[in-house]
Amino acid sequence: MTDKHLGLFTDHYELTMAEGYFKSGMQDEIANFDYFFRKNPFNSGFTVFAGLQDLLEMIGDFNYDSAAIDFLHNKGFNDEFLEYLKNFQFRGDIYAPLEGEIVFPNEPIVRVKGNIIETQLVETITLNVLNFQSLIATKANRLRHSAGDSLLMEFGMRRAQGWAAIQASRASIIGGVDSTSNIYSAFHYNLISSGTMAHSWVQSFEDELTAFRKYAAAHPGNCILLVDTYNTLKTGIPNAIKVAKEMEQAGFKLSAIRLDSGDLAYLSIMARQQLDKAGLSYVKIVASNQLDEYIIKSLIGQGAPIDWFGIGTSLVTGKSDAALDGVYKLSLINKRPTIKLSEDLIKITLPGEKKVVRYLDDNNKFYADAIALADENEQDIHTIFHPQNPDRNTEVEGLKSETIAGKVIENGKIIAVEKSISEISDYRKFRISQLPDEHKRFEYPHLYKVGLSQNLMKLRDKLITDISKKK
Amino acid sequence: MTDKHLGLFTDHYELTMAEGYFKSGMQDEIANFDYFFRKNPFNSGFTVFAGLQDLLEMIGDFNYDSAAIDFLHNKGFNDEFLEYLKNFQFRGDIYAPLEGEIVFPNEPIVRVKGNIIETQLVETITLNVLNFQSLIATKANRLRHSAGDSLLMEFGMRRAQGWAAIQASRASIIGGVDSTSNIYSAFHYNLISSGTMAHSWVQSFEDELTAFRKYAAAHPGNCILLVDTYNTLKTGIPNAIKVAKEMEQAGFKLSAIRLDSGDLAYLSIMARQQLDKAGLSYVKIVASNQLDEYIIKSLIGQGAPIDWFGIGTSLVTGKSDAALDGVYKLSLINKRPTIKLSEDLIKITLPGEKKVVRYLDDNNKFYADAIALADENEQDIHTIFHPQNPDRNTEVEGLKSETIAGKVIENGKIIAVEKSISEISDYRKFRISQLPDEHKRFEYPHLYKVGLSQNLMKLRDKLITDISKKK
Repeated sequence: MTDKHLGLFTDHYELTMAEGYFKSGMQDEIANFDYFFRKNPFNSGFTVFAGLQDLLEMIGDFNYDSAAIDFLHNKGFNDEFLEYLKNFQFRGDIYAPLEGEIVFPNEPIVRVKGNIIETQLVETITLNVLNFQSLIATKANRLRHSAGDSLLMEFGMRRAQGWAAIQASRASIIGGVDSTSNIYSAFHYNLISSGTMAHSWVQSFEDELTAFRKYAAAHPGNCILLVDTYNTLKTGIPNAIKVAKEMEQAGFKLSAIRLDSGDLAYLSIMARQQLDKAGLSYVKIVASNQLDEYIIKSLIGQGAPIDWFGIGTSLVTGKSDAALDGVYKLSLINKRPTIKLSEDLIKITLPGEKKVVRYLDDNNKFYADAIALADENEQDIHTIFHPQNPDRNTEVEGLKSETIAGKVIENGKIIAVEKSISEISDYRKFRISQLPDEHKRFEYPHLYKVGLSQNLMKLRDKLITDISKKK
Repeated sequence: MTDKHLGLFTDHYELTMAEGYFKSGMQDEIANFDYFFRKNPFNSGFTVFAGLQDLLEMIGDFNYDSAAIDFLHNKGFNDEFLEYLKNFQFRGDIYAPLEGEIVFPNEPIVRVKGNIIETQLVETITLNVLNFQSLIATKANRLRHSAGDSLLMEFGMRRAQGWAAIQASRASIIGGVDSTSNIYSAFHYNLISSGTMAHSWVQSFEDELTAFRKYAAAHPGNCILLVDTYNTLKTGIPNAIKVAKEMEQAGFKLSAIRLDSGDLAYLSIMARQQLDKAGLSYVKIVASNQLDEYIIKSLIGQGAPIDWFGIGTSLVTGKSDAALDGVYKLSLINKRPTIKLSEDLIKITLPGEKKVVRYLDDNNKFYADAIALADENEQDIHTIFHPQNPDRNTEVEGLKSETIAGKVIENGKIIAVEKSISEISDYRKFRISQLPDEHKRFEYPHLYKVGLSQNLMKLRDKLITDISKKK
């Protein structure tokens, strides 16, 4: 969206802490931070990882121009520190999965390594970008799951959270939606945009039939008529049929009609009957109006002959789950592994530099994931342990394995190959095909196993003991 | 955020329809659109209107540069239409209330008048900006209502919906929050930013006491210590007290401690006791961690001695209500008033050019609002009618009245006086003071009366009859 003043796209305290590290002479201490989330959104069994390409570009532009420096000077930041910021750029390393990867709670998905100042300063931007796009990609994937092969169109710009509309379109298409109504996103990210007509078009003419005729004349090659401005069954569909027949005379075909209110199951069945009776079986039916994955599933279950769905608010905002709860936690400083304690066992963080290893069964389906130390040999891990109840463990010996993250930024330079949106969406589709069905259920999905390697568990437990001793 | 290519910040169908109007030779027909919403968010009794200044600036920059034209050309838009777009700028009129105004469902809050193409093209941007900022300003006002005079800090950037973080900070402060952690927003909108420290600061040092000492040394004038990294009561608060005493020796004062986990009511009471016992009654207590207006109300009700609250996700996303359901409907074309019908009576739109008149009682409290035709004399309106049940009506004769909107753009030029954020927040506070208490309840607020003038009701009913006759 903008590449200006991006060093300010952060929380105030990141800069206050960065200044503190600088004043404490710690600017060359090497830190490792992990990005992870604690809970899948929407009661989903998994999360679709998205936002990486945007994040990498924003980190590339994360610096302090003179306007930003002046602003921070006026806020009272230290002059020597501001001199340091003038030359700031992120020069560390970042490890991340491919966008479209399937990820699970508590996995250190993205790892940021560099000096304590640079790794601290990019905390907020990392969380801001990955939390939101992963949330929306996951929602889009749920819609895709419920819609089967029907066409899905993102219509949410008007209800999106301000500028978030742009990123929401990108994440929607990564997650499995086919197009967006947001033409800015289409321009910015090279997405497919599409649109129909609004009630205002119909109202702008003396009567509905004239409105339909004028639209067909203006857009004969791609004409979708909105039929519910006055009365869907009595005037909307009959007028659309009349215009479709006139279009046939002129050598064109009406693409579709759109239903935007009322009982979509009933109306779509009635519409299909009327269209078919008129010999217009090729005319598609589009439905919109407060749709989500549950309503689409129900409509399909009722046999509603809807070909294309337009989804707005619930897709671009996540609606009931409006945020992914991702966090960014320090796990290593100056070669010293570190943890944050909590009365809540599950909130104790995992120390050290780590990786996520995915084990696959003989059918190449996901079997379980291990969180291990980065320098462990995957083939030496025979058992993985439940993070809170080590008595519960799973054998992974002999299974095929993959590390799900690779280096994407090295010494501040992006080394990841840029993928097109359709490549990313295809990768998501492929990975979803590797996920066993029981994890894809909307309600009470089976919990996917994510365990710790023995070495990581030992390190964590030793640190807990050490801190307790210090008290 | 950006002023480039803003003519593309719209739905695809706005451009398709604009092209259709152009091809139909309608580019000089004058239209009037109304922006309104149907339901207050969060079960609130009212909504705080916000986003106008941003919208006016964006509409000022809403045009098509060569990159945008090339893009639309490649998408197949008509060349003559693109020539028209090259010189496009919004040249119509916009009427709107002051930001911070209290508004209610179904009121035509903002009115956009101009030729059919320009008024259609700015639909999406109007909805996108006003829906989101009004949502968040309303949420912020709820937090302010529950927090009394406590300081409120917006901490939501990391969980905000991507770029929406920036607009969320602005709307939060309009709604009654005191500061933001988002330093980009502070820079962009001239807001007050503030911040504390993260767990990573504490973990970056060998032990908590050293971490606190180093922070106090770096920021002696504004030191807030986060006390829950290891153990709040056993180490966090005792270490903070030790450092506070050392700061006193050096002539400084610890500003506050921050609690970010656990039972905030219990921990804040314990913390207050320990601090007071140590002679540190001036040290404030900050609380954060998944707060919302209900939890803050409960904490205050339990006597939790929390001075400052940090609120993140629920504030910047609206959480359970992630969108305001605003719409933008055509009410006049070519001097012909128009409506959209619906089987749902409440969804039938109101025709013509309209205004909202607010009636005040003898104490200058809001009494009721009328939706009237723009050219009606307010003093001639004696009775206002329930939109669906005209038997229910209210006398407003003799009451003081105000029109809540004024012209803010005339012939495309912004004529509204730009207000500072604190002026806007003060106006909100003033208007809230005029709203009777029964409309401010969190649960089941009393419904504020919004009625129609007799002339508007007659016009609407005549149009409904006319359309029915045409069938």
